[in-house]
Amino acid sequence: MIENSVICAISTPQGNGAIAVIRLSGNEALALCNKVFRLPNKNKKLTDQLANTIHFGTIVDNDKIIDEVVVSLFKGPHSYTGEDVVEISCHGSEYIQQQILQLFIKNGARIAKPGEFTMRAFLNGKMDLSQAEAVADLIASSSAVSHKVAVQQMRGGFSSEIANLRDRLLNFISLLELELDFSEEDVEFADRKQLNDLLNNIQNLIQKLLKSFDLGNVIKNGVPVAIVGHTNVGKSTLLNRILNEEKAIVSDIAGTTRDVIEDVINIEGVAFRFIDTAGIRETTDVIESIGVERTYDRIAKASIVLLLIDATEGQDEMIKAIRTVKDKIGDGNKKLIVVLNKIDKASTELDIQNLLNKQDIIMKISAKTGENIDRLVNELLSFVNLSALNQNEVIVTNARHYEALEKASVALQRAIDGLNSGITGDFLAQDIRETLHYLGEITGEITTDEVLGNIFKNFCIGK
Amino acid sequence: MIENSVICAISTPQGNGAIAVIRLSGNEALALCNKVFRLPNKNKKLTDQLANTIHFGTIVDNDKIIDEVVVSLFKGPHSYTGEDVVEISCHGSEYIQQQILQLFIKNGARIAKPGEFTMRAFLNGKMDLSQAEAVADLIASSSAVSHKVAVQQMRGGFSSEIANLRDRLLNFISLLELELDFSEEDVEFADRKQLNDLLNNIQNLIQKLLKSFDLGNVIKNGVPVAIVGHTNVGKSTLLNRILNEEKAIVSDIAGTTRDVIEDVINIEGVAFRFIDTAGIRETTDVIESIGVERTYDRIAKASIVLLLIDATEGQDEMIKAIRTVKDKIGDGNKKLIVVLNKIDKASTELDIQNLLNKQDIIMKISAKTGENIDRLVNELLSFVNLSALNQNEVIVTNARHYEALEKASVALQRAIDGLNSGITGDFLAQDIRETLHYLGEITGEITTDEVLGNIFKNFCIGK
Repeated sequence: MIENSVICAISTPQGNGAIAVIRLSGNEALALCNKVFRLPNKNKKLTDQLANTIHFGTIVDNDKIIDEVVVSLFKGPHSYTGEDVVEISCHGSEYIQQQILQLFIKNGARIAKPGEFTMRAFLNGKMDLSQAEAVADLIASSSAVSHKVAVQQMRGGFSSEIANLRDRLLNFISLLELELDFSEEDVEFADRKQLNDLLNNIQNLIQKLLKSFDLGNVIKNGVPVAIVGHTNVGKSTLLNRILNEEKAIVSDIAGTTRDVIEDVINIEGVAFRFIDTAGIRETTDVIESIGVERTYDRIAKASIVLLLIDATEGQDEMIKAIRTVKDKIGDGNKKLIVVLNKIDKASTELDIQNLLNKQDIIMKISAKTGENIDRLVNELLSFVNLSALNQNEVIVTNARHYEALEKASVALQRAIDGLNSGITGDFLAQDIRETLHYLGEITGEITTDEVLGNIFKNFCIGK
Repeated sequence: MIENSVICAISTPQGNGAIAVIRLSGNEALALCNKVFRLPNKNKKLTDQLANTIHFGTIVDNDKIIDEVVVSLFKGPHSYTGEDVVEISCHGSEYIQQQILQLFIKNGARIAKPGEFTMRAFLNGKMDLSQAEAVADLIASSSAVSHKVAVQQMRGGFSSEIANLRDRLLNFISLLELELDFSEEDVEFADRKQLNDLLNNIQNLIQKLLKSFDLGNVIKNGVPVAIVGHTNVGKSTLLNRILNEEKAIVSDIAGTTRDVIEDVINIEGVAFRFIDTAGIRETTDVIESIGVERTYDRIAKASIVLLLIDATEGQDEMIKAIRTVKDKIGDGNKKLIVVLNKIDKASTELDIQNLLNKQDIIMKISAKTGENIDRLVNELLSFVNLSALNQNEVIVTNARHYEALEKASVALQRAIDGLNSGITGDFLAQDIRETLHYLGEITGEITTDEVLGNIFKNFCIGK
């Protein structure tokens, strides 16, 4: 249900700038703006102007001029929200922005909730839910790959993939229903072999989407790399070196716990989150063991563990460190990169291949001179399989979508198993409908106020 | 001289937001944007579209979609700069903003210098120089009165006042020149009494403008109020009390020296800059005397000195403090407000009227209970004569204008004196031309690259 009120918000970033944009949406948006906007020609009215036109004029509070502005008119349904939309481009003083906003409120508009413009766009059928979610992803995107995936999703790439699955399933259901209509006659319109192929085909597609979430998650949140090593082993020198080689942008992630030092470096469009950890060694000291536990905790959450070892150390010491870390990593998907640093000072040979798994690697670098830093960077990048992205395949980046796909997959598998064990058409249809239901949650055919509230509350104001 | 290049800049405030606006200006702006903008209908081109229209489409780098955007078209001379202007409203991710900006640069645009759009507007005759300066003032305006004066100036209020003066002087000169043409015949077309009246009339107007700068300066920079008093006399309680009573906005001024604590409180649209100073007392200690010297320095720069005294102190102590401050203030225009605080604790009678000047005042308050705070606020406000502003008179707020008016006034006085002592028409004409020259500097009829450079370098990027 869309309520009828005119909503307004400052849509440009907070602060002073050359210009700022205030946005109004609602069926009465034009009439409301008309109350406070004067065209240079006093005989003309804003409400008489054509859609998709721009008008210079003044915003006035009674006779007091607030600002000279440019007003852009959009008329529903051909607007972002699907309703009439007015955008006021004013001088970028925060004082003026606030004055104009207050004036609109005084004249009957209300402040928009976060994401409310986009929510109205969804409710008015201008975009589906996964596209709406992509709008927020796009605004948050700060690397080439996160940007690319968000653009693709916003433009309906993911939606059409889901629509494709739904169409096939609907086709399947219609065949089943035809059978049910003629159920007394015990006919089978749909060849069971063909049906089985079709369902398996769809299940494969869903599995592929589910699998893409590994990459999607990395794209959206970055690759967590735990750097393990003693204090003076050269961690910050290494990060600075990578930074310089890649001419990358480094930034702090907001919201990380205070005791974790995290540097985000964009390498070829992928964000790597380097998490500094305390040194690892066996200890009986209570306080120190807390530090070590945290280190293990960070290792557990990392995708790549970068063990940085001082090449001037003794060989036994090195092997002990590698063993300790390897023990903690276990046999999962984590990649261990053992990096012998300071090879400008010592040329150590270390035969530890027997300690490592297939995906692990050992290499020698000098953070100080830059030797082999390019190889290390390539090792980091090789963890991220960007080929799917480069082939413009659909990639799931959203945990909500992933969950819905998982549920869809379970229901579909029940259908497949049922088909194979010969359950009746109406039971089969029920499983397929459940699959359709979960797929519909992704694009928003099926939704609740609570789901919508959760999605849009994370949007910024004015979008 | 306007160069021909297309300039571009992000015109909205820095940071992530719902949307951001990137602005292009130049005769080739449309053609340049057309290279990277695709309309939904591939057969249509941006360059074929009408002025003052809005177009939805995509920004593309070859085949890579950077963003879905809305493009606003303005065609010179009916645009802000007087040239063709394109505004791209994109999703407000900083990453996207930078990508689009880089794309325009790759295609031949260059980053605009601060204020370059407005400078082009001036050079193309869209506004005079004082109007251009008002644009920056408007963006910087953070109070009702500074906003009002900037709007008035931007809309040409000041310009038309100057134009009025110039017209009268030009009229005067044409009469003089007529005389010079007939100089052999020794006629006087212009009655000397009338000419004298005219010049004095203009001089009066210039003097009135010069005088308005007292108010103008206060409007633009706020009223500096030095608060003098011992540490525990209740300074911060008083400021908070004023703040609460006035429901005002408090903020720190950027760029003040680190050791000065300055609170800006907007009272009825006027900014008061409260400058906290160290306690005043006679001292022989070297370090302390530096503190005291600084206090005097701040008193010297303040318009109002607010001496805050603890009403529970001894009478001799109070009188000594008042004497010390009064000595340092001297007999200028400064207003001294002696405030006896903490009258909730002590009811002191203090007869010091003989120590005070006419404009000074003594009052008793309680910052804690709020007693008489309204009276104190009225005393502060009474220092600012807003009647000129309320009568919509022109107010000079710009030091550059003030200087030019002063020079114009000197030249004009020379003309008046010359007229009275009967100098010849050609000398008279020379003085009038000099007056015109200085008035022309204000509106920019007369200007140099250096002057323009100084004015526009303080603008924000994208304006």
